[in-house]
Amino acid sequence: MIELTLIGIGTGNPDHLTIEATRAIAAADLLLVPLKGADKADLAGLRRHIAARWTTGARIEEFDLPSRGQGGDYLAGVEAWHDAIAALWAARIAAHLDAGGGPRVALMVWGDPSLYDSSLRIAERVGRMLPLSVRVIAGITAIQALCAAHAIPLNRLGAPVTITTGRRLRQGWPEGADTVVVMLDAGGAFLSVPPQGVTIWWGAFLGMPEQILDAGPLAEAGGRIMRSRAAARAAHGWIMDIYLMRRVDG
Amino acid sequence: MIELTLIGIGTGNPDHLTIEATRAIAAADLLLVPLKGADKADLAGLRRHIAARWTTGARIEEFDLPSRGQGGDYLAGVEAWHDAIAALWAARIAAHLDAGGGPRVALMVWGDPSLYDSSLRIAERVGRMLPLSVRVIAGITAIQALCAAHAIPLNRLGAPVTITTGRRLRQGWPEGADTVVVMLDAGGAFLSVPPQGVTIWWGAFLGMPEQILDAGPLAEAGGRIMRSRAAARAAHGWIMDIYLMRRVDG
Ligand SMILES: C[S@@+](CC[C@H](N)C(=O)[O-])C[C@H]1O[C@@H](n2cnc3c(N)ncnc32)[C@H](O)[C@@H]1O
Ligand SMILES: C[S@@+](CC[C@H](N)C(=O)[O-])C[C@H]1O[C@@H](n2cnc3c(N)ncnc32)[C@H](O)[C@@H]1O
Repeated sequence: MIELTLIGIGTGNPDHLTIEATRAIAAADLLLVPLKGADKADLAGLRRHIAARWTTGARIEEFDLPSRGQGGDYLAGVEAWHDAIAALWAARIAAHLDAGGGPRVALMVWGDPSLYDSSLRIAERVGRMLPLSVRVIAGITAIQALCAAHAIPLNRLGAPVTITTGRRLRQGWPEGADTVVVMLDAGGAFLSVPPQGVTIWWGAFLGMPEQILDAGPLAEAGGRIMRSRAAARAAHGWIMDIYLMRRVDG
Repeated sequence: MIELTLIGIGTGNPDHLTIEATRAIAAADLLLVPLKGADKADLAGLRRHIAARWTTGARIEEFDLPSRGQGGDYLAGVEAWHDAIAALWAARIAAHLDAGGGPRVALMVWGDPSLYDSSLRIAERVGRMLPLSVRVIAGITAIQALCAAHAIPLNRLGAPVTITTGRRLRQGWPEGADTVVVMLDAGGAFLSVPPQGVTIWWGAFLGMPEQILDAGPLAEAGGRIMRSRAAARAAHGWIMDIYLMRRVDG
């Protein structure tokens, strides 16, 4: 039986790792380190640093993710992409076992494995190919990194919070929500929101040396954020950002 | 200038602490350790363990929280309660400084300081009494501990998530939500939800040796969870639980 551990590593600060995460990395026989697309050069270094810092003899295997086919049906495209990644994980794990490697396989996951991440869905597919038990180790999410950096609460007192994507926000402010956190925004979905009474707290590259923060009434801060986002993106070649918006009497 | 650091310590597993949290505890001159009401005996031990494990010469000060006055206006009651706690923090910090203690004050916060927690609001009040800069260190939340324990994603693919309270859930399923996380439920608010097409993942004492998990279609699991909740509560004298519900075609 293979034990696959999905390890949340936080969002850019190597000190986001929990003790539990460092232990799981130390206990691994095989550590799978996915390298990403646009962010590759920057974040590969961080992942290597974390792997090197905490492994104790694991075989470290980096791998490039296959890229997702564009066009066609969105959900079908994602399913096919997950199938391709699962085949890749399964092949690496099988090769490791064939070479006499131990059964503890670990995979480093950005942030927390539960939040807008496909690792659990991919692990389920691998479980159909190999005998697998899956364990998850929580990590600091971008939502928490955002709130911590601004030193703000996520929720109003006793009030609900909606977490959503840029794509969804463009369809309108979520019904019944007064606090909305937006992730996976390709850029500027907040401009689709009527700004009256809305305050925004924005952060890019949270936890990293490049971290940028801005906050203010959406009417004023919106344009400013768009400009610094564009500048940072041009400077780094990629960007990761997230924001929280609160609406008065929402 | 006093530097007050609110340190998220996770939800019951001392290995939830991040490296950043352990460093902040080590760097503190004064560590404030709040003891709670019902959970006191059990969780005071955990907090003491964490404090003792990571401090390097900080003065550790435990204190009992004043209890919240019941009755009257809810929000006004909470405001008064926060005022009372802020006065208590300020007095401890002032006494520490008067005795020649250093300016780095740290406070251990359950889970993450951003999520359904008053420490940031209280720190703001203390900042009106003493010259203060506030820093936040993120911690693993009960939401993440729940998803990790069940090895489930928080969100459906690209879909939003609503985080709410038991009190709010009793007013109806949040509009537009297909995934709902419920915290601060005094017990059984999920029974107010029409169970058709709803699956529940429930967890109590997450991250602790007493951890209990259950999951299934709400129609079947609801009664079972009520029974094990009542039994666990009777056995321990208190309970902390959280759940995630997903609705098909929600
Ligand atoms: C595929 S999701 C992964 C989320 C991750 N699992 C987590 O727990 O935060 C990527 C999105 O997370 C947010 N994000 C992740 N890391 C971030 C960071 N360091 N700074 C700002 N946003 C970040 C952005 O909204 C980005 O589009
Ligand atoms: C006052 S809130 C504090 C939340 C905390 N700041 C966090 O980040 O999880 C307390 C609520 O959190 C949830 N909770 C906290 N710790 C928990 C645990 N170990 N197991 C289950 N639920 C927990 C319960 O819903 C409880 O009513």
